[in-house]
Order: sequence, then C-alpha cells, then structure tokens
Amino acid sequence: MERNTNLRWRLPLTCLLLQVAMIVLFGVFVRYDPEAHAQWWMEKKRRNFSSDLENEFYYRYPSFQDVHTMVFIGFGFLMTFLQRYGFSAVGFNFLLAAFGIQWALLMQGWFHHFEDGYILLGIENLINADFCVASVCVAFGAVLGKVSPVQLLIMTFFQVTLFTVNEFILLNLLEVKDAGGSMTIHTFGAYFGLTVTWILYRRNLEQSKQKQSSVYLSDLFSMIGTLFLWIYWPSFNSAVSYHGDAQHRAALNTYCSLAASVLASVAVSSALDKKGKLDMVHIQNATLAGGVGVGTAAEMMLMPYGSLIVGFICGTFSTLGFVYIMPFLESRLRIQDTCGIHNLHGIPGIIGGIVGAVTAVYAKPDIYGDSGVVHSFDFQGFKNWPTKTQGEFQAYGLLLTLAMAFGGGIIVGLILRLPFWGQAADDSCFEDAIYWEMHEEKSTVYVPEDPTLKPPAPSVPSVPLAHSVPMTPLVPSASLVP
Amino acid sequence: MERNTNLRWRLPLTCLLLQVAMIVLFGVFVRYDPEAHAQWWMEKKRRNFSSDLENEFYYRYPSFQDVHTMVFIGFGFLMTFLQRYGFSAVGFNFLLAAFGIQWALLMQGWFHHFEDGYILLGIENLINADFCVASVCVAFGAVLGKVSPVQLLIMTFFQVTLFTVNEFILLNLLEVKDAGGSMTIHTFGAYFGLTVTWILYRRNLEQSKQKQSSVYLSDLFSMIGTLFLWIYWPSFNSAVSYHGDAQHRAALNTYCSLAASVLASVAVSSALDKKGKLDMVHIQNATLAGGVGVGTAAEMMLMPYGSLIVGFICGTFSTLGFVYIMPFLESRLRIQDTCGIHNLHGIPGIIGGIVGAVTAVYAKPDIYGDSGVVHSFDFQGFKNWPTKTQGEFQAYGLLLTLAMAFGGGIIVGLILRLPFWGQAADDSCFEDAIYWEMHEEKSTVYVPEDPTLKPPAPSVPSVPLAHSVPMTPLVPSASLVP
Amino acid sequence: MERNTNLRWRLPLTCLLLQVAMIVLFGVFVRYDPEAHAQWWMEKKRRNFSSDLENEFYYRYPSFQDVHTMVFIGFGFLMTFLQRYGFSAVGFNFLLAAFGIQWALLMQGWFHHFEDGYILLGIENLINADFCVASVCVAFGAVLGKVSPVQLLIMTFFQVTLFTVNEFILLNLLEVKDAGGSMTIHTFGAYFGLTVTWILYRRNLEQSKQKQSSVYLSDLFSMIGTLFLWIYWPSFNSAVSYHGDAQHRAALNTYCSLAASVLASVAVSSALDKKGKLDMVHIQNATLAGGVGVGTAAEMMLMPYGSLIVGFICGTFSTLGFVYIMPFLESRLRIQDTCGIHNLHGIPGIIGGIVGAVTAVYAKPDIYGDSGVVHSFDFQGFKNWPTKTQGEFQAYGLLLTLAMAFGGGIIVGLILRLPFWGQAADDSCFEDAIYWEMHEEKSTVYVPEDPTLKPPAPSVPSVPLAHSVPMTPLVPSASLVP
Repeated sequence: MERNTNLRWRLPLTCLLLQVAMIVLFGVFVRYDPEAHAQWWMEKKRRNFSSDLENEFYYRYPSFQDVHTMVFIGFGFLMTFLQRYGFSAVGFNFLLAAFGIQWALLMQGWFHHFEDGYILLGIENLINADFCVASVCVAFGAVLGKVSPVQLLIMTFFQVTLFTVNEFILLNLLEVKDAGGSMTIHTFGAYFGLTVTWILYRRNLEQSKQKQSSVYLSDLFSMIGTLFLWIYWPSFNSAVSYHGDAQHRAALNTYCSLAASVLASVAVSSALDKKGKLDMVHIQNATLAGGVGVGTAAEMMLMPYGSLIVGFICGTFSTLGFVYIMPFLESRLRIQDTCGIHNLHGIPGIIGGIVGAVTAVYAKPDIYGDSGVVHSFDFQGFKNWPTKTQGEFQAYGLLLTLAMAFGGGIIVGLILRLPFWGQAADDSCFEDAIYWEMHEEKSTVYVPEDPTLKPPAPSVPSVPLAHSVPMTPLVPSASLVP
Repeated sequence: MERNTNLRWRLPLTCLLLQVAMIVLFGVFVRYDPEAHAQWWMEKKRRNFSSDLENEFYYRYPSFQDVHTMVFIGFGFLMTFLQRYGFSAVGFNFLLAAFGIQWALLMQGWFHHFEDGYILLGIENLINADFCVASVCVAFGAVLGKVSPVQLLIMTFFQVTLFTVNEFILLNLLEVKDAGGSMTIHTFGAYFGLTVTWILYRRNLEQSKQKQSSVYLSDLFSMIGTLFLWIYWPSFNSAVSYHGDAQHRAALNTYCSLAASVLASVAVSSALDKKGKLDMVHIQNATLAGGVGVGTAAEMMLMPYGSLIVGFICGTFSTLGFVYIMPFLESRLRIQDTCGIHNLHGIPGIIGGIVGAVTAVYAKPDIYGDSGVVHSFDFQGFKNWPTKTQGEFQAYGLLLTLAMAFGGGIIVGLILRLPFWGQAADDSCFEDAIYWEMHEEKSTVYVPEDPTLKPPAPSVPSVPLAHSVPMTPLVPSASLVP
Repeated sequence: MERNTNLRWRLPLTCLLLQVAMIVLFGVFVRYDPEAHAQWWMEKKRRNFSSDLENEFYYRYPSFQDVHTMVFIGFGFLMTFLQRYGFSAVGFNFLLAAFGIQWALLMQGWFHHFEDGYILLGIENLINADFCVASVCVAFGAVLGKVSPVQLLIMTFFQVTLFTVNEFILLNLLEVKDAGGSMTIHTFGAYFGLTVTWILYRRNLEQSKQKQSSVYLSDLFSMIGTLFLWIYWPSFNSAVSYHGDAQHRAALNTYCSLAASVLASVAVSSALDKKGKLDMVHIQNATLAGGVGVGTAAEMMLMPYGSLIVGFICGTFSTLGFVYIMPFLESRLRIQDTCGIHNLHGIPGIIGGIVGAVTAVYAKPDIYGDSGVVHSFDFQGFKNWPTKTQGEFQAYGLLLTLAMAFGGGIIVGLILRLPFWGQAADDSCFEDAIYWEMHEEKSTVYVPEDPTLKPPAPSVPSVPLAHSVPMTPLVPSASLVP
C-alpha cells in the first residue's frame, strides 16, 4: 500500500497553528509567579523578612535541570537504539516535548496555579510541565517508528490534556500522594501508549522487521539515554516533594532502588540466555525500573531496605517482561510495543502504585512523628482521615489512572488512525529517510591516503574471487558494478 | 599548493608560552575572593551574622556547572557534525576554551574584579570567563575545519581581549543590561568570526566539499551538543542575573523562548523542502535561536508570551537564514561560514539586542514597582535617567558591538592569514588526519565469527562473482569463507 | 587454551547473592539521617530555629549529582574507546558501580556514620559511596577487557572493603585531609588496579592486540566521558569540603588546575610526535590529570597560580607517562594497563598527595587567619599539633595508601586468578561478543534507495580489479592479499 508521507503542508501548518495558539493563550492567561516578579518578590521579601535565598528558585532549580535533561537527553537518546531511526527518535522527541511543555504549562496552570484569572508561572510549573511531557515520551516509546510527527503532535495535545485531568483528580480530589509519578506519569503514559499502539496495529509490520533491530553503535547511543535517566532519577522523584526531609528522603530512596534494579536486571538477563550472555535491551531498560517503582513512595518513610526490595522486584519483573510478556502482547494481543514500555513503565508503574498504597497504610506516628504524619500526607482540614483510608484512595487512584489510560488511548488512537496524517506504510516504518533529508554517504571507516600503506582488509574475500574471474569471461563486466 | 601542517614545534611552543604567561600573571595578580578565602569569609560571616548558605557559591554554582557543560560539551559536540572532523571539533574546542577561560579570568578580572592591585577570584568570575569563551566558540564555528590549532589559540587570545573591552564599554560605560549576552556574546562572537572567515577566504574550498558534509552518525553526535545547549540555556541566561526574582525570571523566559523556536524551526524546515522533509542542520541549530534571542531581555519583565514571540521569530529567521542567506553570503560575499553561525548567533543576536532595547524602554513602575525598576536597571547615583534613555543606550551598545566585531575581526583575520601557522591547503580542510594521529581501521560492522552463520551482505555483489567459482576447481571452496 | 565463558549460573548467582545480602544488611543496619527523617528533621528545625534551606540536601545535592554523573557517564564512556568493547565498558562499569555504592554505604556507614547501632543515611553518604566506587572504576581501567563481570563484582567487593579501611586510617586515625581523594581514591585505585593486573598477567595478550585499539567513532564516544569528567571535576573535589569558603575554594582551584593540564597535554602530545600530530589517547586522559593532582590540596589555600602549576605538571607527566612509562611497565614489569590508569591516576595521585603535604606544612595563620587554620585542619582537642606535623602525617598517609594498594592488590589478584570466574582466553579479550548477545548487522552506511543515484564507492576496487585480473594470470596471489 502506498502512503503519502510528504508532510510539506501538514507538518508546518500543524506546528504554526499550535504555536500561534500557545502565544495567544499565554498572552491571555500566563503571568509571572510572585517569586519571579520584579515588584511582587520585593514586596514578599519585605513582608516576610526573608532573603533572596528563600526564593523557590534555589530550592528547585537544580532538580528542574536534571528533570529537563532526562526528558530531552534521557528519553531522546534512549530511543536511538533503532539502526536507522536515530534522527526521528531524538528529533521527534525534541519536537513533541517542546510543544508539550507549553501546552502542559497552560493545562496544569488552569488546574493548579490559577489565581485571579491568571496562571502564575514559576519554577515548579516548569518541573510539572516536564513531568507531564515525560508521560508523553513514555507513550512515544510504544509507537516509535510507526507514526508521523503530525500524529505525534496530535497525540501530545490530547495526552497532555488527559494527563492533567487525571492528575487533578488524583492529587486534588482523591488527595493521593504521587511524588515521582508512578501512577500519573508512568502507569498513565505506558497504558495510554500501549492502547494507542493497539488501535494503530499494523498487520504487516514484519516487513520492516529487519530495520526494527539495533546495531552496535545505535545501542551505545541508547546507553547515553539510559545512564542520564538513571543518574538523574533521584532528582525526578524528589523534584516537587516538600522542602527539607521529604525531598532529601525521596532522593535517597530512589538512589537505593535504582542500584538494586541494576543487579536484578543483570542477573535475570544472564540467567535467561542459554549461553549466559547479557541482552543490551535489558540493560538499557530494566535497570531503570527501580526508579519507576519507587515513584509514589519515594518521599514516604519507605526505609532504605524497602527501596532496595522494590528496586529488586521491579528490575526482575521488568526483565522477565521483555523475555516473556512482550512477545505474548505482540503475538496474541496485537500490541506492537517498539521500546518495550510495558516492561519499563507499565509493570513497574503498577508496582509503584501498590507500593505507595501499602506504604501509606503503614504510615504511623511512631515513624513519622505526630506532626510528621500530618505534614507528609496533608492530613488537615477536610482531609482528616486515617492512613488506611489514604492507602485505599491511593489504590483507587491507580485504578482510575488505568481506566483513563485505556479510555483515552482508544479515542486518541482512533483519531490517529485517520489516513491523512502522513504515516508510513508497513514496509517503511523505522526509517529516518521518510521524514528527514539524508545525504549520500561514504563509509566512515578510515582508510589512510598514503598509498604505501596497506588498505584495510575488505569484507569480500577478493583473492579467491579474483582468481576465478579469468575463467568466466562470459560474465558481463557490468554485473560487477554494484 | 603544498602547506606545511607539521605543528611539532609551533603548537607545543604556543601552548607552553601561553600557559607559562598565565601562571606568571596569576601569580602576580590573582587571589581568592573573600567568599572563597579561609580568613576573610570567617570575618565576613561574623560581621554580617550570616550563615554559610549566603556564600555566593550556593547561589551560582549549579548555574555555573550548566554553563560549563554548554561550553565544553554543548559547543564541542555541536560541531562534530562533519564526517571526518569530530576529533578536531571537540578537541580544539576543548583546547581553546581551556586557554580562553584562563585569559578571560585575567582580562575580566582587571576590568571588573580588581581591588588593591589584585584580581579577586570567585564563582562569578568563572561564569563570566565561560561566557567570554562561549563567544570564541561561536566564532570557531565560522572557521571550523579551515584553521590550525595554533591559529585558534591566537584567535582566542585576541578575541578574549576584544570581548572584554567591548563588554566593559557596554556594561560599565554605557550601563547596558545584557544578562544572557545577546550582544556581548552572540552578536560579537558571530560577526567577529564571520569577519575573520571573510578575511581567510579560501578560493578553492570546493576541493574539500565532499568532506564538508555530515554523515548519519556524526549528525547524531552533533545532537548531543544541540540538546545540552538547549536544556541548559535557561541557566546560561540567568547565571549572572541578580539573586531572586531576576534569576528566576530569566530562566522562565528562556525556557519559553526555546520551546517556541523548536516549533518554528520544524515548521519552516519542512515547508521549505519540496518533499516536506526536515533538514538535520536546522534542527541542530535553529532550535537554539530562541535562547540567543532572549539573551538581553531574559531578566526583564518580557512576559512569558513575549518570550514565546521572540523564540518564534528567531527560530523562523534562523531557519530562513540557513536556506536563503547562507548561500548568498558564501557565493556573493565570500563568507565561508562552516557551521552557519550567522543564522544561529548573528541574526538572533541582533534580534536579541533590539528586543532588549525595546523591552527596556517599556520598563515602567506599574510593571516593576517603583523600587523594582530602580533595582532591575540600577537607576541610581549617576545613572538617573528614564527608561527611554536606557533603551537608546542598549541600541548604541548593539551598534558598538558590531563595529568592534568588524574592526577586530579584520585585524585578527589579517594576523591569522600569515602563512606560517600550520593551516591546511584548500583541498585538505575538514580532515582530522592532518592534526591527529589516526589508526588504520577495519569496519566496525559486526560479522559473527561463527562460520556456520551467513556473513552480512557485502557491498560488492558477491553472487555474480560466486557464480564463476565453479570454473576454478583448483581454488578450494573453503577459501571463500572470510 | 579454551575457556568456559558461559556465565549462565555464575553471574546470576553472584548478583543475587550480593543483592540479597545488601537487602538483609540494609534491613538490619541502615536508617535515615535526621536530615532525611520525617520526625527528626521537624524536631531539629524546631530546636535550632532553622529553615528547610539549612538541610544538608541543599548544600550538597548539586555536587552529588555531578559526582554521580562522573562515575556512571564519565568513567563509563571514557572506557568505550576500544573498538569492540563499548557494551562491556559502559555496562560493566554500570554493574560494578551499582553494586559498589550499596556495599560502600554499608562499609563507610559502619566506620563513619554509625550511631546507636544504626547507619544513618544522608546525602553525604551518597557522595562518599560514589567516591569509593570511583576508586573501583579507576582500577577497572587497568583490567578492562581482560576480566569477566563476575571477577569485577568480586574485585569491587574487596576493593570497597579495603578502600574503606584505608580511608578510615587516613582520615580518622592519621587525621589527614584529602577532600578530592588524590590519595584515598586515585592513588589507591590506581596502584590497586595495577597490582591486580600484574597478578593477572596474560602472556599471550598480543593475540588480542588488534582488538585492543580504538576506532574513530569509539574515540568520539570516549570523549563524552572525558568531557563530563573534566567539567564536573570541580564538583568532585569540593563535594565533601566544609560549607562556605572551603567548598568554594576547592571548586576554584580544581577549575584552574584542569585548564592548565589541557594545554600541557596538548603541548607534550604534539612535541613527542614526529609530525607534531596529537594523540587522542593523551587528550582523552592526560587533560584530566590536573583534577587528580589538586585532589588533596584543592580545599587548602593553594592559590590560583599554585593550582595552575600543579595542573601543568600533572598534564605534562601524565602525557610523558603514556609515551615512555606505559610501554616500559608492559614490557619489563609485565603490567598490562589497558586504559593507562598509571598515567591518569597513579602519577598525578602521588603528585597530589605530595602537593597536599607541602601545602599543609605552609598553612600559616597569616594566610588562613587564626581561626581559619584551626577550622580548615580541625586543629582542636587531641589534634593540637603544628602544620609541619600535619604535613608529615599527610606523607605517611600517602605511603600507607601505596602499601595497602600493593598488599590488597596481590591478595585480590590471586583470588581473581582462580580459573572458574568465566574469564576469556588470551585471544578473545577486548571483545563484547563473549558476554553480550550480538545481532548480526548490515553496514550503517546510508545508500540511497533510488537506483538512478550512484552507489558509494566500494572499499574494494571491484571493477578495475576484475577487469585487470584476466590480463595478469601470473600475478602471484600474495600481492592481492591486502
């Protein structure tokens, strides 16, 4: 089947339309937070006798930059593992995230930072926007290589919208805690993406099979993404926690959990290979599962050993997921999950939601202190309930997130199935050349120009073949020209 | 024309001479700032009843590290896009920046941090030195591939000197505001570099044409640079702003502007290609134009929508510059701009200067507050003028910067044209092997060693040749197995 | 000699055993520090009338993240220079560091953070654990390509143990200062690793010689590691210094020293090549020697010019080490040092220890102030001795470190020599395929699919060769062998 993948007018118009809408909406709604406002910050300082150091900027900016790195470098490079899809992986991730953060600033602004008709913009909004977009990057992993950039922008628009509604219900109505977003970011992103790719099922995708694998250097590029995600995940899970002990504790717990999931991934990856060899896919992905798994409970008193256990379980199930569940999803449920997000974000996200609910139930004053338990879970005013109730609400939050992801994914998937978004045919998926100008290339292998030096060994055995040529004068020489 | 590119004595002697000069000048002039001095910091704390947290280090260090990353990783990898010039791109950028920061600490120290005969060294000096060197990295982009490392060190020496003089006139005499350096860093760096490359015009550069393009993996390496520049640009534009709201606001504005320039670049890049395909060069460069364009105004009350508009305009004009202006500059004005710095730093730098001037004119007490407008623009003492005057002075600053860049570029270009700096001939530009030891290589393509596995398809059509084998019964067939 | 490199049960069991042990020991011993504890931090704040900003987290977290980046990205990618060992370089570094930090948290916790039967975990523990693991990463550089992941885990277990004992003796019994770990991290790591590789001497390693070199792109990947180590080294050396001036000063000194070692490395590298060309190995490694060399003295009043001198000396000797000492070590002393850690960590580490001792001797009240000298060197209580004694103890610390490294290295080397750890045979070292699943690959070179376009020039001159062969039946086949 031929597909028109020429985006000449579709992509520019989509970008322009969205960007102009953003400018207009920002003009109408977005103003600076008092902490970033020349007049209001001076007044706030005077009123509170505080110093510039108390500006939220100094509490949050280092964490923000780490989260920002994860979204653009981490997710971007993680997805460069495909042999001929590196430009799209890193470039489309860049595009969707750059649009997504703007739309998320508006959506989350209306729900969370709206005062007197204006959205007040400060450093915390930026972190939350990056969080929201991280959820889109997760879903991008499922459809990687199979959708056009126009589809991605549309998916981003709807997913950010749904994300914000779900997040509002969880955090503000159910009063759930979810610092690192096991539920709101990872579970939602994963099951939304999986549902979309299920709706977009491509019957003849095996025609692109050969391009759907990695090569040596693309795997190394992907490790750049893995490692930046891994090292900055403690910042991710602690970025919006309360100042002081909560932010501190969230970083510690995440650090521990991530370390354990590396050893679990290596152990299971080696044990499942008949020669005991490691699979790069597991190292690139399952090692991160520990960060997802402690997302909800990271700021709670999970204890360091608790974090190790969570990381260990998540690393194990994530690797098992790659080996056993992913092929099943593809062959039986027709869910074509390019990056295996079900293993990295889906399973560990659900585990994280459950761990959070259980940890909340066991939050007792003898661990947190009387005021600590109130402070940590905001038990005041209307929210005057026992920790058992908190645990139940955490569980409801998880279930609701799954429902929103499935429902939203079906609707958005159906929209994306419309045939005019410039998507590729089944036999030309996972191929940069469809959407990117490519230059003809010579090999990058270095051949010294000095003619006295010997050339590198050719991959074709020239000697025996050369000998044989004299014997075959009938072979037309043209056929020798490749 | 043969050129002697053997740097055996020229490069070592240049490095040694410069480094010894730095050591002597540091010995005579450079001491620690009170905030970094064992005795003075203790006294300062006692005198001010302040805590260690008030040390400038904690306000500035995270921003400094981001700027440092941009200079060494960001600019270094951005320039690795050439197929055989990655060592030089990243290596010479490393060399010139390592020298440049030392010389900038001295030059800027004499002009800005000089007390009682000594330069006082603290974290802010490091940021300013990195800023100054960023301007040299910009200029390096214009001459990339065409100059020797000796020329680069000489250019760095003179450019840092001129930069500091220009910066002093703007910031201290004209009392211009330029937090992110749209004028002092980007406009100056770009037009200085363009003037130098104009003087160094190479008539027969098309002989190296084939090497002057990118290949798939070099473009991916370049995206490492692009993304680190993009994510850390908010730190760049806010790194030396006043504590509190100004630093906070500068980061917010830059974040918004950068996001808009991504969508603008993608839109224009796709619209200008007849198949609607994206050009990697635009994505690598024009997406960053928004950061340059809000450099001057980032710390002002530009408003979030103002930042989006600036980013949108800069991304658009930057991409248009790559398609229409750059070929014109090369063919008509004989300006050979390897990286297209005119599009990324020149045009957006000028836009940034103008935006800064206009924003300053509209700085009113009803926006900043009475004390806010005084504080933000230092309107006190001798500088007791209306914002309209501030705007005029901003514009003069921009014009002066252009004049300094042209004048300085001509002089430095003429010095660099002297024939004994080890520069390459026109037909061997853009080639690492001139200045770097290269190892003979075999292909990095993986060929499994198990002889029962089939080898990967060779680039030479082996099948017709293989057909001939039956005619050569004396060649043992085993010899065909590579 | 055939070797059984199938790790199917050995690697999983080792990982599981170690990880389960970590979980149990963490369960028994590790609790949160008061600064990360929901109850205790609230009480501490109330008792001290302090704000959340005074939480250690805000003093240390940005530095911690930089150190974390250095260990996982910096060391990991620095070692990807081998042409077919990138997966193992970055993957095994990941594995050993993920295990090492857990074991280091326990070991260092017992020695340094043990209260009432519990190890109290806070941000400073994380930095110290990363420091300890950095020492293992250094040693990994010596044995890179020659050991199995099982051996690496065992080496990590013992090296972390020995590191902690050595560190305890130096810092707590000899009361030595060593902020950036010239002695405890670099000297110990280097000589421990060199001793291990000496014990593990492989007689026929030249059979893997061809794989033990770099290729163009692997060298570029390695530069990612180099540059991240270089830019974040100021954070490394200042991460655990006292708040305020000491941390500030340590960053300044390291910045200066690193800059000088770049110019020294370039100068010496070019001067020692007969065509004046630069060697990528020197740029990747010797440029970092300045960071190692100021490790001990960085927080002292070394003065900026002192730092430049140290960096200059370290860069020079490090490059000389690569050219003259490393071949000598291999041919005469049978020390096969894959990454040249003797040049990057060994020599500069010893220089750093000596510089620290000398700087301590000259620490006078007229430089530090009366209280400054007491504060900087903890001269109080039992430790009431002159700076000359401090200098002597620093020197003893260096000697003890060398003794511990040699002694420990011999014992651990002998353990690793046991034949059942899955190590490779001499002719299959430096090869990822032994421990990693590899996919068969086609070339990543882009060949446009449009058949009217000419293909890229094949590396084998097929047409002329084929044509000419019929005419030259007498050409001896040897001449055709490339």
